[in-house]
Amino acid sequence: MASKPSIPKGTRDFSPAEVAKRQYIIQTIKSNFEKFGFQPIETPSFENSDTLMGKYGEEGDRLIFKILNSGNFFYNRNKIELPESLASLQQNSAEKITLEQRIELNKFTSKISEKALRYDLTVPFARYVVQHQSEIEFPFKRYQIQPVWRADNPQKGRFREFFQCDADVVGSKSLWQEVELVQLYDTVFTALGLTGVTIKINNRKILSGIAEVIGASEKLIDFTVALDKLDKIGEDGVKKEMIEKGISEEAISKVQPLFSFTGTIAEKINQLSQLLSASVEGMKGVEELQFICEKVTQLGLATAQLDLDVTLARGLNYYTGAIFEIAPPKTVAMGSIGGGGRYDDLTGIFGLKNMSGVGISFGLDRIYLVIEELGLFPDTVAATSKALFVNYGETEAFAAMQAIQKLRAEGIKVELYPDAVKMGKQLQYADKRGIPFAVIIGTQELESSTFALKNLVTGEQVVLDYEGLQQQLQ
Amino acid sequence: MASKPSIPKGTRDFSPAEVAKRQYIIQTIKSNFEKFGFQPIETPSFENSDTLMGKYGEEGDRLIFKILNSGNFFYNRNKIELPESLASLQQNSAEKITLEQRIELNKFTSKISEKALRYDLTVPFARYVVQHQSEIEFPFKRYQIQPVWRADNPQKGRFREFFQCDADVVGSKSLWQEVELVQLYDTVFTALGLTGVTIKINNRKILSGIAEVIGASEKLIDFTVALDKLDKIGEDGVKKEMIEKGISEEAISKVQPLFSFTGTIAEKINQLSQLLSASVEGMKGVEELQFICEKVTQLGLATAQLDLDVTLARGLNYYTGAIFEIAPPKTVAMGSIGGGGRYDDLTGIFGLKNMSGVGISFGLDRIYLVIEELGLFPDTVAATSKALFVNYGETEAFAAMQAIQKLRAEGIKVELYPDAVKMGKQLQYADKRGIPFAVIIGTQELESSTFALKNLVTGEQVVLDYEGLQQQLQ
Repeated sequence: MASKPSIPKGTRDFSPAEVAKRQYIIQTIKSNFEKFGFQPIETPSFENSDTLMGKYGEEGDRLIFKILNSGNFFYNRNKIELPESLASLQQNSAEKITLEQRIELNKFTSKISEKALRYDLTVPFARYVVQHQSEIEFPFKRYQIQPVWRADNPQKGRFREFFQCDADVVGSKSLWQEVELVQLYDTVFTALGLTGVTIKINNRKILSGIAEVIGASEKLIDFTVALDKLDKIGEDGVKKEMIEKGISEEAISKVQPLFSFTGTIAEKINQLSQLLSASVEGMKGVEELQFICEKVTQLGLATAQLDLDVTLARGLNYYTGAIFEIAPPKTVAMGSIGGGGRYDDLTGIFGLKNMSGVGISFGLDRIYLVIEELGLFPDTVAATSKALFVNYGETEAFAAMQAIQKLRAEGIKVELYPDAVKMGKQLQYADKRGIPFAVIIGTQELESSTFALKNLVTGEQVVLDYEGLQQQLQ
Repeated sequence: MASKPSIPKGTRDFSPAEVAKRQYIIQTIKSNFEKFGFQPIETPSFENSDTLMGKYGEEGDRLIFKILNSGNFFYNRNKIELPESLASLQQNSAEKITLEQRIELNKFTSKISEKALRYDLTVPFARYVVQHQSEIEFPFKRYQIQPVWRADNPQKGRFREFFQCDADVVGSKSLWQEVELVQLYDTVFTALGLTGVTIKINNRKILSGIAEVIGASEKLIDFTVALDKLDKIGEDGVKKEMIEKGISEEAISKVQPLFSFTGTIAEKINQLSQLLSASVEGMKGVEELQFICEKVTQLGLATAQLDLDVTLARGLNYYTGAIFEIAPPKTVAMGSIGGGGRYDDLTGIFGLKNMSGVGISFGLDRIYLVIEELGLFPDTVAATSKALFVNYGETEAFAAMQAIQKLRAEGIKVELYPDAVKMGKQLQYADKRGIPFAVIIGTQELESSTFALKNLVTGEQVVLDYEGLQQQLQ
């Protein structure tokens, strides 16, 4: 191979410094998941295609990475049946593929590929719950932090391989779960030093209520998208857009209060309950929202802010109750860094009915970017050695290894420069690696069983016995 | 989907208890890697096919999982060129595939698949080093703990998805690295409580020396395989097998000392240096082995035993110096639980010459099985809550949540049962989850701001104020 090697587009190598920072975030999320009673599971990177296909819509199906059978689809087959229409494609190479050919190709694909890389953690989790239902004690609080893969067009902040960090509870409809999930968000972001995030909350049933009131559920997305622009284009602008989208003036007037939807959460809930009084489902949503917001407010949040946002329509297709979304601190220009909600029928797709679930997700890559931009990564994140022992040759290196062995047994990260090259080169290595101390054992130190400890930042150097050295490096 | 869902053969779901145990091993390996100065990197799950194909021999190529282009190979193409010979396959469906057809199919495969799941961590590491050489300070001590995928036939202990845990140094030929890697093995297994492992060591150059002495390098594998059976079939049996394999009696007589190859490491090295005195390369191997074994012995190991094993021929194709293999304690019937060695030209395949590397690997799945069999997993491994707060209804649950919030802020893992169902059901949940305590807040406790703490193992129950509760659960 002559040219420099590369990696597939949309994927990333992570350097030691990057892994350390990612691990810091993951470890913080993980330890708080566990503090809140969630338990880890892991599922295979690839699932049977049956498990994944058709669960994410047509667009999703297209973005699922498919794996050729048995590592190499033809090796294990004596014969391969290829549809004739594929051969004809070759002859008419300039023509676009027809629908019939696409169907044939689809069939062909499923013959040569029976496995696919997971697209998210939710469907594999649903599959896990159904498959292992007899071993699971419900309600089941699980967390899962694993990579997922999507054949999306890569762009800034969007990758073909990325981690998802999910916590879900299945098997209970209790709204205390929503209360705890809000607290969990608050606890994690506080622990990461990321103060000032906004936890936006809404409820699918409130959106249904609004749809009822405006008289057209199919216009709901248009309605919320327009309403979300209130800050930018003003009440008139929003109404203009709504009318253009086919929402009647009469319908708009019925939800007039939403155009001046401000105040405390309690005040907003009060307005909503007036607005949606005619909708049974809408009122159920108000009631749920009220319980969650009231409990969260009474118990108090450490640094995050709770906000009721009726334009929040995230995951409208599957959420049935609460909807969450996390906005980063306002000083950072970045989309949501987390989200979640309640879905009343998580496992129905695999034949297990009446299994309500609620969960949240943390957006690792975006959280990383926000913490980086705000300079919030602690200096201690990098997993670097505390000291480098300079190597002056076999005898000195042996004495160094004796000390190194004892220090490591005390849990102190130290290392020996492997070759007896020029000291300048060895210290340069320490510097580039961010190792703060060098330990020098020369002839004099060998004779007196001492160690010269050099602070590589200040240049200061002291001579110590082993105990002194250990104390300094501890 | 009517039938119960399943996962692809050779893959696994991991339950909370299993994840906790796996994490315990991984965490132990990871923290010791870092203590020894290794830094983490991560590479993408899939690489360009070019990067992987041809690096693992023909068998390896076959076992590499290939990914269809862009998630769906045909969607992004207006035309697909299929070789005519594939169409003919259909007509002769009963016939075996011909060599020509296989070549055509190979070409076809590389057209519809340009990416593949990584097969090990070594080739991606070599690719990483070459790609990022200008950012790396050499010698580069990296560790990597990530899954790999192989389309092997699954069997007991062999999976299609499994984790590798590798530590390697590139950019230095210093034998101190080998000394440290032996110590690292000893430190990790000691930390895991796995005492009595044997670290077998050999050297590729000694094997070359033996090949020189027996006069046929192509017979080396046959020779070592036969010699390895000495314990089982005795000297005569081994010699008979060697002769059957075409090794001459004269050649065998030249290495006669290997048939009574016992004693201390120093004695074995002494015998080898006599046996291989005519081979320059063999003597270089003896010298290297002597340095490593001498330093390791002088510095001392905590619980592992070092053993010189001249039949150790693992990875003969790529190792050029030291070869390591770890045998589990003799009480367990299990193959090697780790291995490694030195390879003088790791990155040559990607165009970067003269980059010597040495590394070791831990076999996570087998280590897991050994620790399980010996009952060495600590009881504290499972990440379960310390206490379950029983739910008696909204008011009581709110009081519980107030305490829970404070306890979590102290880092104590506690949870609320989400629904106010029968107490028996709630306690059964705690029991099944392995939660040791229940906290009960009833009317009485509410009035007196106290908590009834029930030990679920002994059944004992005490009434405490908040401070007492926190103390008990800390």
